[in-house]
Amino acid sequence: MAHAERKLANGATRVDFVTDPGRYRHWRLSVDGEIATLLLDVDEQGGLFEGYELKLNSYDLGVDIELADALERIRFEHPRVRVVLLRSGKPRVFCAGANIRMLAGASHTHKVNFCKFTNETRNAIEDASEFSGIHTLCVVTGSCAGGGYELALATDHIVLVDDGSSSVSLPELPLLAVLPGTGGLTRVTDKRKVRRDYADVFCTTEEGVKGKRAAEWRLVDEAVPHTKLESAVAERARAFAAKSERPQAATGVALTALDRTVGPDARRYKYLTVEHRRAERTATFTVRGPDAPPPASADDMVAQGAAFWPLELARELDDAILDLRFNELDTAAIIFKSDGDRAAVLAYDAFLEAHKDHWLAREIRLKWKRLLKRVDLTSRTLVALVEPGSCFAGTLAELVFAADRSYMLVGRLEGDNQPPPALALGPANFGDYPMSNGITRLESRFLGEPESVGKARNRIGDDLDADEAADLGLVTFALDDIDWEDEIRVFLEERASFSADALTGMEANLRFGGPETMESKIFARLTAWQNWIFQRPNAIGEEGALRLYGTGRKPAFDTRRV
Amino acid sequence: MAHAERKLANGATRVDFVTDPGRYRHWRLSVDGEIATLLLDVDEQGGLFEGYELKLNSYDLGVDIELADALERIRFEHPRVRVVLLRSGKPRVFCAGANIRMLAGASHTHKVNFCKFTNETRNAIEDASEFSGIHTLCVVTGSCAGGGYELALATDHIVLVDDGSSSVSLPELPLLAVLPGTGGLTRVTDKRKVRRDYADVFCTTEEGVKGKRAAEWRLVDEAVPHTKLESAVAERARAFAAKSERPQAATGVALTALDRTVGPDARRYKYLTVEHRRAERTATFTVRGPDAPPPASADDMVAQGAAFWPLELARELDDAILDLRFNELDTAAIIFKSDGDRAAVLAYDAFLEAHKDHWLAREIRLKWKRLLKRVDLTSRTLVALVEPGSCFAGTLAELVFAADRSYMLVGRLEGDNQPPPALALGPANFGDYPMSNGITRLESRFLGEPESVGKARNRIGDDLDADEAADLGLVTFALDDIDWEDEIRVFLEERASFSADALTGMEANLRFGGPETMESKIFARLTAWQNWIFQRPNAIGEEGALRLYGTGRKPAFDTRRV
Repeated sequence: MAHAERKLANGATRVDFVTDPGRYRHWRLSVDGEIATLLLDVDEQGGLFEGYELKLNSYDLGVDIELADALERIRFEHPRVRVVLLRSGKPRVFCAGANIRMLAGASHTHKVNFCKFTNETRNAIEDASEFSGIHTLCVVTGSCAGGGYELALATDHIVLVDDGSSSVSLPELPLLAVLPGTGGLTRVTDKRKVRRDYADVFCTTEEGVKGKRAAEWRLVDEAVPHTKLESAVAERARAFAAKSERPQAATGVALTALDRTVGPDARRYKYLTVEHRRAERTATFTVRGPDAPPPASADDMVAQGAAFWPLELARELDDAILDLRFNELDTAAIIFKSDGDRAAVLAYDAFLEAHKDHWLAREIRLKWKRLLKRVDLTSRTLVALVEPGSCFAGTLAELVFAADRSYMLVGRLEGDNQPPPALALGPANFGDYPMSNGITRLESRFLGEPESVGKARNRIGDDLDADEAADLGLVTFALDDIDWEDEIRVFLEERASFSADALTGMEANLRFGGPETMESKIFARLTAWQNWIFQRPNAIGEEGALRLYGTGRKPAFDTRRV
Repeated sequence: MAHAERKLANGATRVDFVTDPGRYRHWRLSVDGEIATLLLDVDEQGGLFEGYELKLNSYDLGVDIELADALERIRFEHPRVRVVLLRSGKPRVFCAGANIRMLAGASHTHKVNFCKFTNETRNAIEDASEFSGIHTLCVVTGSCAGGGYELALATDHIVLVDDGSSSVSLPELPLLAVLPGTGGLTRVTDKRKVRRDYADVFCTTEEGVKGKRAAEWRLVDEAVPHTKLESAVAERARAFAAKSERPQAATGVALTALDRTVGPDARRYKYLTVEHRRAERTATFTVRGPDAPPPASADDMVAQGAAFWPLELARELDDAILDLRFNELDTAAIIFKSDGDRAAVLAYDAFLEAHKDHWLAREIRLKWKRLLKRVDLTSRTLVALVEPGSCFAGTLAELVFAADRSYMLVGRLEGDNQPPPALALGPANFGDYPMSNGITRLESRFLGEPESVGKARNRIGDDLDADEAADLGLVTFALDDIDWEDEIRVFLEERASFSADALTGMEANLRFGGPETMESKIFARLTAWQNWIFQRPNAIGEEGALRLYGTGRKPAFDTRRV
């Protein structure tokens, strides 16, 4: 299974991303009116895997799963919250970053997937600030090192207590011979815009930077004496709260437990089924359209809560994608299928559009935006099959556009009395779901022929058959019954025969043409360099710094520059 | 030395980047008025290293050194050339790309440095088109695979003969389990803007794409029948020539042999000395200012030719940087020093500015732009020491701004009667030399405080002492005599103690804050992923595809996705 190198501490065989505040071991979420506090107080004995202790508020994937959950709950369950205070529940340490012994003993795959997930969680903090009016303040007391500082970097405002010892640092390079892996370098240069030579000094200084110098170098927003800390934090919180447009009075929606059945070869949710064909190394994700028309009003949507189709499906897909990333490493391709009524899907899109200023509708669309980005960033071949009975329309059509290739059937399958499939576009395909490069999937697709975006827009709402969809450039191949099965089988076999690594690298390049953003830079430039370093003997070899950390032995480096 | 894994075929111990058309073994450069032809006709027995044959017009570093040289000669020696035709001298094959046996037997370091140099050469082809009016047409007859197609991608226009067999392809992934390493993926998506799903099909199809489909997918600009090939090429060449503003009548400048003495620990040129302190793992580059004022006229500049100070120094620095990259792998830091008269340096800058529309002045500034980008991309720690007697002014001050850190002396050194050092800015620092991210080094430096660019501009021409330079943010540290030697020594020792790989990754991130361009994407996203893959067992392991190529054995892949 996924983690041959380590056993899950809870005895399970799969990492599970579902949790709730009642089960948190490392974070405490408290809400007081428009201010929420997330207190990091890591349970040393609460590591997700066996073999290490989470000392000094260091974290592993389990800690981050709780953080991601808490952020989702603030969005959905606490619509009045406008400011989140990120604080440490331990004296003298804010957070020591990712646990080094965990990293040292983790497989390359786990390291990379762990960094990807933590990156997505930090991006979600910034997304909440920009689009949801949930602003995060980080109150740094004690040492804030590595991934701890990278978490701080994702917030809107960092207050560092100026007490002569509290500090921020990125000690990865001097200490471990790796890079900060969760956006640190990019946020230092591109978000906080620290001067590059100061950044060089900072990133090579194990003990980090304290007090006024940290503020002068723009590493933190302010350094305040201990006596003034609480008043400064309260003042900043008020100021950020005043900028937010979250509702003054609104009732949240409980993110109830997912309706999920996990079998050996399948994972069944209410609106999603995942089937593993392990011999072929494929996982088929079949999403189902809604089984009822949209509610009559926004209040009815709130009343449906977590059962509201777009929200429930988004949560199911998110869970399934994460499960696959961490627990099904051998899967080469994800096959997206759909089943349902296109008009009903578009009706839900229209409902969300009609209520786009309602906090819940907004959160649901933002959830889909993040989910679809997670799909883009999943390092498996993505293929969409547009078959009879499918409902790839509007929001669901984004799965087709996220795919590396899509196949659409021309006409019917022999012996099948369903009508030929159709694809339908909606307004959602033209701006609601930008990729991490800042533009839509259709804009990315049509970089070389921007007029094709307009042509597609003119067909919003139409049932497009395979030939029309191919003419509009919306699918890769339109195939008739004679070729359908063989072509797809050959493609999937071929894909499974290629090097997994080369495919990962190729897809990471081809999926993100065009502009770059800070987010895409993190996932491209920084992540790729980090992955390279995570393979180099200087870090992970027998004499490498990451391997030897804590043993008292000095690493022996190959000094040749590449 | 550099290439323990292979011996240089010529018996030398260092790769030498100096060549001239009389010594070419693989390319033939012919000039006919405004049209130059570069014919690729690789000498199978002419490999730079022992152990492989350059079959099917495949290339190694030696082939690319000739190409880079030829392009420089077209710029400087043939100012009337407006169009370069890139053609194959062999039947049925245009170019098979980088030689696979060479790659399979090369060290990781050589592979990475080789790809970097070939990337720089391809970027220079595009730079010549955009800024020098030298447009390149690629005439593809026969198979054009991998690095061959990546070379074609760097040209302005690709004509593919539609003869039923000639094709373009990127077979790296299916054949070798690596990526195209010379910008291929990025140019397919971002330059030619091939639709991402077609790009996926193309990059996984070993045999490539032929004829009309290649044109329809935008992989080539046109596919023409054999009978019409020459007329089509001639017509395109005329059209591109008409767009060029290169001079109708001008005499070129011979790029004469560099005045160079290579000793065991030093490399001496007319205006540059490189001293290796191998125990400390440093190389000190001391550049010297001009020894005479600028010439009186553009004609006098042409008459000085390769001896003209800015041109001579640029060629010397280029040679020295390349030598260090390939032959001095153990060097951790490059220390830039200078020696000369700041006013004289600024006078040469002013001369080039006054004659900026003269073809030779333009070429010299473009040469400096490319050279400085090469410095930025050199994976060694860069440090500048601004000491008494130095002449970091204008163009030479860019070396200070390219450095990861700079140190400037406050006052004098004890026992030294030279006046305190000064730094001087010139107009050249504000636009002549953009980095690969599209903005100047000062703009990159001051991303977080753009007003500092303006403040610096207000001080153009002033002699800035260390305190002033530090106040303006132009140097990292201003140190007095008491701290000078120790601080720098400790810094260099510390740097040499860090992991070479982690430094490479960190510097590649911190040096390029802010915007991204196609060029920076190639060096960041694509290169970093390729470097990662070049470390993965699926490519380079005992059972990896790159290692087993040509043995008839099938690679055994680790199928887990990362």
